Amino acid sequence: MKQVVTFGEIMLRLSPPPHYRFTQAASFEANYGGGEANVGAALAGLGVPAAHVTCFPANELGQAAAQSFQRLGVDMRHTVYSGKRLGLYFLEVGASMRASKVVYDRADSSFANLDPAAFDWDEILKNAQWLHWTGITPAISATAAQAIHEGIQAARRLGLTVSADVNYRRNLWQYGQTAQDVMPDLVAGCDVVVCSENDADDLFGIRPAAGAENNFVSISEQLMTRFPQIKQVISTRRKTQSASHERIKGQLFDGTYSETPYYDITPVVDRIGGGDAFLGGFIYGTLTYATPQEALHFAVVASALKHTIHGDVNLVTVAEVEHVLQGNTTGRLVR
Amino acid sequence: MKQVVTFGEIMLRLSPPPHYRFTQAASFEANYGGGEANVGAALAGLGVPAAHVTCFPANELGQAAAQSFQRLGVDMRHTVYSGKRLGLYFLEVGASMRASKVVYDRADSSFANLDPAAFDWDEILKNAQWLHWTGITPAISATAAQAIHEGIQAARRLGLTVSADVNYRRNLWQYGQTAQDVMPDLVAGCDVVVCSENDADDLFGIRPAAGAENNFVSISEQLMTRFPQIKQVISTRRKTQSASHERIKGQLFDGTYSETPYYDITPVVDRIGGGDAFLGGFIYGTLTYATPQEALHFAVVASALKHTIHGDVNLVTVAEVEHVLQGNTTGRLVR
Amino acid sequence: MKQVVTFGEIMLRLSPPPHYRFTQAASFEANYGGGEANVGAALAGLGVPAAHVTCFPANELGQAAAQSFQRLGVDMRHTVYSGKRLGLYFLEVGASMRASKVVYDRADSSFANLDPAAFDWDEILKNAQWLHWTGITPAISATAAQAIHEGIQAARRLGLTVSADVNYRRNLWQYGQTAQDVMPDLVAGCDVVVCSENDADDLFGIRPAAGAENNFVSISEQLMTRFPQIKQVISTRRKTQSASHERIKGQLFDGTYSETPYYDITPVVDRIGGGDAFLGGFIYGTLTYATPQEALHFAVVASALKHTIHGDVNLVTVAEVEHVLQGNTTGRLVR
Amino acid sequence: MKQVVTFGEIMLRLSPPPHYRFTQAASFEANYGGGEANVGAALAGLGVPAAHVTCFPANELGQAAAQSFQRLGVDMRHTVYSGKRLGLYFLEVGASMRASKVVYDRADSSFANLDPAAFDWDEILKNAQWLHWTGITPAISATAAQAIHEGIQAARRLGLTVSADVNYRRNLWQYGQTAQDVMPDLVAGCDVVVCSENDADDLFGIRPAAGAENNFVSISEQLMTRFPQIKQVISTRRKTQSASHERIKGQLFDGTYSETPYYDITPVVDRIGGGDAFLGGFIYGTLTYATPQEALHFAVVASALKHTIHGDVNLVTVAEVEHVLQGNTTGRLVR
Amino acid sequence: MKQVVTFGEIMLRLSPPPHYRFTQAASFEANYGGGEANVGAALAGLGVPAAHVTCFPANELGQAAAQSFQRLGVDMRHTVYSGKRLGLYFLEVGASMRASKVVYDRADSSFANLDPAAFDWDEILKNAQWLHWTGITPAISATAAQAIHEGIQAARRLGLTVSADVNYRRNLWQYGQTAQDVMPDLVAGCDVVVCSENDADDLFGIRPAAGAENNFVSISEQLMTRFPQIKQVISTRRKTQSASHERIKGQLFDGTYSETPYYDITPVVDRIGGGDAFLGGFIYGTLTYATPQEALHFAVVASALKHTIHGDVNLVTVAEVEHVLQGNTTGRLVR
Amino acid sequence: MKQVVTFGEIMLRLSPPPHYRFTQAASFEANYGGGEANVGAALAGLGVPAAHVTCFPANELGQAAAQSFQRLGVDMRHTVYSGKRLGLYFLEVGASMRASKVVYDRADSSFANLDPAAFDWDEILKNAQWLHWTGITPAISATAAQAIHEGIQAARRLGLTVSADVNYRRNLWQYGQTAQDVMPDLVAGCDVVVCSENDADDLFGIRPAAGAENNFVSISEQLMTRFPQIKQVISTRRKTQSASHERIKGQLFDGTYSETPYYDITPVVDRIGGGDAFLGGFIYGTLTYATPQEALHFAVVASALKHTIHGDVNLVTVAEVEHVLQGNTTGRLVR
Repeated sequence: MKQVVTFGEIMLRLSPPPHYRFTQAASFEANYGGGEANVGAALAGLGVPAAHVTCFPANELGQAAAQSFQRLGVDMRHTVYSGKRLGLYFLEVGASMRASKVVYDRADSSFANLDPAAFDWDEILKNAQWLHWTGITPAISATAAQAIHEGIQAARRLGLTVSADVNYRRNLWQYGQTAQDVMPDLVAGCDVVVCSENDADDLFGIRPAAGAENNFVSISEQLMTRFPQIKQVISTRRKTQSASHERIKGQLFDGTYSETPYYDITPVVDRIGGGDAFLGGFIYGTLTYATPQEALHFAVVASALKHTIHGDVNLVTVAEVEHVLQGNTTGRLVR
Repeated sequence: MKQVVTFGEIMLRLSPPPHYRFTQAASFEANYGGGEANVGAALAGLGVPAAHVTCFPANELGQAAAQSFQRLGVDMRHTVYSGKRLGLYFLEVGASMRASKVVYDRADSSFANLDPAAFDWDEILKNAQWLHWTGITPAISATAAQAIHEGIQAARRLGLTVSADVNYRRNLWQYGQTAQDVMPDLVAGCDVVVCSENDADDLFGIRPAAGAENNFVSISEQLMTRFPQIKQVISTRRKTQSASHERIKGQLFDGTYSETPYYDITPVVDRIGGGDAFLGGFIYGTLTYATPQEALHFAVVASALKHTIHGDVNLVTVAEVEHVLQGNTTGRLVR
Repeated sequence: MKQVVTFGEIMLRLSPPPHYRFTQAASFEANYGGGEANVGAALAGLGVPAAHVTCFPANELGQAAAQSFQRLGVDMRHTVYSGKRLGLYFLEVGASMRASKVVYDRADSSFANLDPAAFDWDEILKNAQWLHWTGITPAISATAAQAIHEGIQAARRLGLTVSADVNYRRNLWQYGQTAQDVMPDLVAGCDVVVCSENDADDLFGIRPAAGAENNFVSISEQLMTRFPQIKQVISTRRKTQSASHERIKGQLFDGTYSETPYYDITPVVDRIGGGDAFLGGFIYGTLTYATPQEALHFAVVASALKHTIHGDVNLVTVAEVEHVLQGNTTGRLVR
Repeated sequence: MKQVVTFGEIMLRLSPPPHYRFTQAASFEANYGGGEANVGAALAGLGVPAAHVTCFPANELGQAAAQSFQRLGVDMRHTVYSGKRLGLYFLEVGASMRASKVVYDRADSSFANLDPAAFDWDEILKNAQWLHWTGITPAISATAAQAIHEGIQAARRLGLTVSADVNYRRNLWQYGQTAQDVMPDLVAGCDVVVCSENDADDLFGIRPAAGAENNFVSISEQLMTRFPQIKQVISTRRKTQSASHERIKGQLFDGTYSETPYYDITPVVDRIGGGDAFLGGFIYGTLTYATPQEALHFAVVASALKHTIHGDVNLVTVAEVEHVLQGNTTGRLVR
Repeated sequence: MKQVVTFGEIMLRLSPPPHYRFTQAASFEANYGGGEANVGAALAGLGVPAAHVTCFPANELGQAAAQSFQRLGVDMRHTVYSGKRLGLYFLEVGASMRASKVVYDRADSSFANLDPAAFDWDEILKNAQWLHWTGITPAISATAAQAIHEGIQAARRLGLTVSADVNYRRNLWQYGQTAQDVMPDLVAGCDVVVCSENDADDLFGIRPAAGAENNFVSISEQLMTRFPQIKQVISTRRKTQSASHERIKGQLFDGTYSETPYYDITPVVDRIGGGDAFLGGFIYGTLTYATPQEALHFAVVASALKHTIHGDVNLVTVAEVEHVLQGNTTGRLVR
Repeated sequence: MKQVVTFGEIMLRLSPPPHYRFTQAASFEANYGGGEANVGAALAGLGVPAAHVTCFPANELGQAAAQSFQRLGVDMRHTVYSGKRLGLYFLEVGASMRASKVVYDRADSSFANLDPAAFDWDEILKNAQWLHWTGITPAISATAAQAIHEGIQAARRLGLTVSADVNYRRNLWQYGQTAQDVMPDLVAGCDVVVCSENDADDLFGIRPAAGAENNFVSISEQLMTRFPQIKQVISTRRKTQSASHERIKGQLFDGTYSETPYYDITPVVDRIGGGDAFLGGFIYGTLTYATPQEALHFAVVASALKHTIHGDVNLVTVAEVEHVLQGNTTGRLVR
């Protein structure tokens, strides 16, 4: 099978011990993750060849980050080593009504300062069938936006499927251009997008039509009209009960609307990467199952399982997802 | 008070840190446990003299396993040291809809290769009032089956009470004989058995009578008819909500049917050994209380408490069980 | 802003690792806390200048205890170093229906043996606006009772507000005088008291009037009649579901009755210090908000958040409490 | 083989993580130990039946302390449960020129308050061949001194060997009697004593004769003259290089003087219990070998090995000591 | 006593577990330290009032850094909260011939971007007797250089003693000015400097006179000639054996040359902050002892002890330093 | 550069926490290693393409073992998944004169039961320049011996360099054939061998010629005569001081004798894999440097550094080895 290629920043995540606050921490657990690489790693775990493309500093932290994904079977050979620092963030995991908190420290990272010319997309994508990116990448810097722009162009030229999680984060856009200026061109090259109602409004000024029966369908239709390359809009919907208790379902519009039942997750072990697990599951499902409905259901169960797993990456097998898909949601011991 | 003697394999259990998957583990927590020894240890904690009989390799791991139960007050003097390795298993504890997983590595253990002649049952049982075994032991090897067979014969000869958790595990029976051939003879020597509907069907071809009002009663009656030595059939019934949330009650048939209310356990800390805790509680209760109904209620509360305790063994006192039995289920701080 | 001064014992708290029982512990987590110092530390965290007055042994443990509160910004300069040992207690945290347990080892501590003459209250309170104490202090020893008595007198003389959590603990009163003898004089000097129905009955023989519509109002009215200095009686009310699941609301009577909604806490990370967090919140609220109702609501949310935080002290900011007060109880990630 | 019985206090030892100072500790490692029980545990590990007699509070800490020695095979059945608290001490392990430090918190322990009448020495010693005690016990309290006095009398009456480590600790003698008053009577009942030059001077006013060729011989001769029951005086001699580097040899006088070579220990893992390991080794050697010289050599190697082992107790086997005795001091890997 | 004030950056230090390499780390131990603040904290531990002046981001990491020094008794009230990030560095501790390694990640920190106008030096220094700075601060940024320049001017104006560790780190000077341009003006305001031969050459072009008997004396004389305010030049001299074994002595020139014996440190627990401990010891000694020779000896022993302590800060008391000064270098247990 | 291919078993290594004995361990640190894979991983870290060929069970432990080497950049694509269990061993690390201990539990592993036909050596070696194996592999089972035999044949056919560490472990040879029967054929295909004097005697009956000036030269000459394909014999020579202190040098005979100076390692962090690091270094050096003397020196320094690193694998870079080679053996901090 040809590779799925992901492109984006990988950061070192530093977390206090379970239930400790930042100021109580005498140590931090170290994980490496990023919204796009997490998708690649999830796919590698599901048996799909995956490669991730990124930029690290040429020091031990960059090496550790690369090894972390290499361990999971992600092809890291396209890593560019340049720049001065690995982006990082501090994560305090909440409980009950106390929210989890992130303190970012990613400014001026190697990835933010990447040189777009360092990526030879035709070479990178030559054995690939799919390119995945997120809205975080073009938010980081002009050169990062330029790099993914070139990647998408190459992918279209080579006939790959392109997917994006548009994921608008207002705080990130600091380099002088706005998401509203940059994103449309990039999204125009996509076949599959994850886009919430808020994202649609913030990025494209798209709101549900007055009196729409289903807001998700309404914004999906408008997205497809605006960006005719888009064939599928997908999304998770959350009914968050507390930092320790989550309920999620999946939604899909590809002309027709589908959704999955809600899945209940309590306790939530680690919600970071839940959306990336959804996407990894959906790409896997699309490459494997006959119908997008099956892919969607696989994706939402994969995402639910991710919430029970430590770290950014969804360490589940196809058999484990299918076990839950078959209705085994009570977590009985497997001997 | 005379001893309760248990016989069976003790394994080293290796678990990743809380909420980590096998492949994430940079260390494993070590516990020692076994379905029969756990009963003995529970009884010792409840103040009943207990001895466990088993076979370990003559190395540091065998020594550590023996010390682990010796610490809890179990008489380990009858341990036979022979063979080459301690059986072990790897346990990954699940969460929410993600199931816990066990990877066994117990083949060719010292216990599996035990020499039945090494156990002098008349000596072992001379200060005992009760012998307890489980269906795991005869599943392990022909010599293990032979040893427990001789133990049961001696117990009957010496007038002890004999109890068994028949516990059918299909995967274990690998040495050429079937459970269906071996178990009836062993169960025939028992006064008390734990037997689920599935076990009754798989082992003895006993199914609830068509139109039975209460399946448990129906199979219990048939068991007692087939094996007239049996005076009590007991069982726990679970309504598993998730890997983190369990509900259990106890059932008893001794001519009449009794049951307890359901007890709700959330979060579940460690469900391994929940059944052994039930049995330990039932044996304690039988030796202590006036009625089997009281013993049953004690047993199910003991089992519920076990689910909140790390490791295989139920580390609770009589006072703690009775505190909950008296209706204190809200876990308020005891100063 | 002038200081809030608290007075009382600080103990070393030693806890087994999460979910381990005392007898399983190969190590104990160390925290330092005390019912009064926890209030001071909570206030310091909320931005209110706080000083704590206590007595430690002149050894490394006393030093560590002082540093622990100094770190949080509590002014510890009034600490008296005398006596032989730091009081300590062992805490085993329960789960589900298994109760948390405390083993106290505080007898003959430096604080119990303090010399009242070592505290120059006029000096200590010269920059203060508020003095807070609890019913634990006079229970510890005659000299501790004497010291707080002198503190309250000084506070009244200097025009400070005085608050107390009357907190009756029968087991503590061992030195020859009874709470019923000692407490009335002390409570008579207070403006604000936390007093439950049980405390009112045990300490003052005050019970709800027959046919009272609201028991809390009834005992509050009687308290205010008996002790005319008291202007506000406050309390938390708990509907404890299990050791892992708590529900709390706040109550206030100051002539009129007010209460807050219930807040649901699951899982409970650490319930020790929940009441102190309530008081810290209430003092902060009283100094900040226009109405006692707002102070009460702030207090109960602060207390609820404390239940999600490890250790005795409520490590929350005003912004975090207000975030929940504004209805954000689902703990969504804050980036 | 008959039992060796030891009598004395067991304390909970709390240590910061390796190389951390007291004030840095967010947790303390927990060990249980005592100068006499350590001897018993060392003997049990060497295959000699051992029983320890002590007094614990009837709480979880007393239970944990008992279990800790029960695990190692020490017969704890004679434990008396009374009194209010377990003695404890805090240990900070030094490094290089930074000394290790102990903060004691043992006053008013269950052992200090023991009732001598609770110990039925004829029953306790009925299967014993040897009684061992140390000078710490009579230092703790008048009742502890009384209890060991009765124990020694019983031992003499029953024909046991009695040994003592006289171990004078000035700070401990706080209850009104002096070591100089109490110890002679107790030492008079001993066959074997560990006594350093300082101890001989402090306790008995015995100093090396002017111009003595060998001080150890000189004080030993005087001890034997004063206390004719004594047949052997033994001692370790240390050339301490630093907290991390120790050199020790053994000395014996039984009419003739013997000594062993020095053994070099670097790094020192844990020096607590090094003297107890020496005694355990000497008792083992005395019961096993033909000559006291062999016993002495075994003892000093056992003690050297103890310095490489975490905790108070010498967890070594006979084979391991003999391996070093045979000249294997380079610690090469044993497969 | 009046305060010693230090000024400089405090960073979060992240270290893999003991003996782990960066790429093996699944967690990092967290410490907070800085070359100047370490001096202040050492002084506070020795009983000298100390205040540190710095700039942190207004987030949880800045708060934790401040609390870390507040805990040790350093007055942190002058902290300015501005800028975006806390500087940090990753430290891998070596062993034997494997060197320790530092990966810096301090660029663009809050401190580097400080606003000199935010520091009111007359206010800051009004209760001070001494100002200490290092050559790291002016290396970080032009504004940091400006701030310390103003501080030194104010200190001179107010009659304080000023000390500096000139500490030339070539890699740090990145903002356009050179150390050779900036440092002379700053050093000109100092009474006491730490300056090695390399520093003297690199910063001031000062080399030992040809044929000088003592290089240290020679460069010290030249320094004092060039900067007449300097009255004392001090330095440590190391004979490093390995990452685990260090030998250090102290040197002083104040017209006359003095030196201490070498102190041997094995194992080295943590060498970071050894120089800061030397300076803290020297300032303490200068304020306490009659002669600079005594101060020097105190300083080098304080520094030696620091090498046995985890973290950047020298957590030793006066009594502990004096214990070693009196010749107790064998680290014998202190009970 | 073409690959170096290694072939052999990888085991899970379980170690108690630092300085704990087996029976004290409440957890075990997990590492994955094997004598041949360690060479491959060392080479990958030095920048040489490396592939390892082995056999794992198709369970999570096999997956974790593969990921562990994949992380380090070793090509694991030739892994065969079959059989039932991962071999494992328990390692207790000694200190001072206390030896480290290994308890093997590797019998009946997937590797021992491998099917030689599952390895297509022409495919495996098609991009390779070097094949490395050890004497452990043919000791494990007849099929393992068969597999490496076929591998060596293929390597010779394809013109690769073949190296072996003959490493005779008497205890391992249990399957019916002797090392003396099996090894000569295998060694006959090698260009480079590591062979100690003991190995030469045990395996080939080769002893130093009477009166030989240099034993190593003497046995090397005889080996080369017996096995004319051998061009280089290499070896490390150890002067083991204690479990914590090692001294090593390297020796080479290729017609001429060379040796390196001794390198002193104290403390030893982890000596497992020291020999594999030597070989990895020698292969790297052979592929890189002009002379075998340079390769030998690189190899012994690489091995010395390995002793300072946790785990089986030598995690060092070329720059780090060269830094020490250039005489920097004092481990000074690298910023």
